[in-house]
Amino acid sequence: MPKIVVDVMPKAELLDPQGKATTGALARLGYEKFQNVRVGKRFEFTVEGEVTSEVLAEVCKVADEILSNDVIEDVVAITVDDELIELEDEAE
Amino acid sequence: MPKIVVDVMPKAELLDPQGKATTGALARLGYEKFQNVRVGKRFEFTVEGEVTSEVLAEVCKVADEILSNDVIEDVVAITVDDELIELEDEAE
Repeated sequence: MPKIVVDVMPKAELLDPQGKATTGALARLGYEKFQNVRVGKRFEFTVEGEVTSEVLAEVCKVADEILSNDVIEDVVAITVDDELIELEDEAE
Repeated sequence: MPKIVVDVMPKAELLDPQGKATTGALARLGYEKFQNVRVGKRFEFTVEGEVTSEVLAEVCKVADEILSNDVIEDVVAITVDDELIELEDEAE
């Protein structure tokens, strides 16, 4: 079954406390060279049948409306079987 | 500055309650064709200076020891500026 991956990150203009904490932890442990850590989510799921353009549209809808919170998060990537899908909703 | 992305997923053999809940929610909303949702984490961070093989080794160490919990999670991908890095720790 085709595997779909949706990557969701907190919007760049928002504070990301989990990322800040991780940056701080890395620095304390001696890894000062790693900075600006941001922590997002990665959803992996399978889809029944072939991935037609209709299914793709549905995936984009699900990613935008259910898997991410529009107010604080951006869908940064959608891949189908390791192939990156265009994200054209940036224009809105 | 080079951007590094580390993807961490719950191990395949473990239950993933968050993923199960998401699968259920999608089905209830009419998206039954999307199944086996698993929810993992995506870390994005920048690194100072060039990404030498030493820095890469450090990134792999940080990914394995700090960003993921070995007992319940797998590091599934590490990319540097969108280029996938080999993950050779699967052999263990």
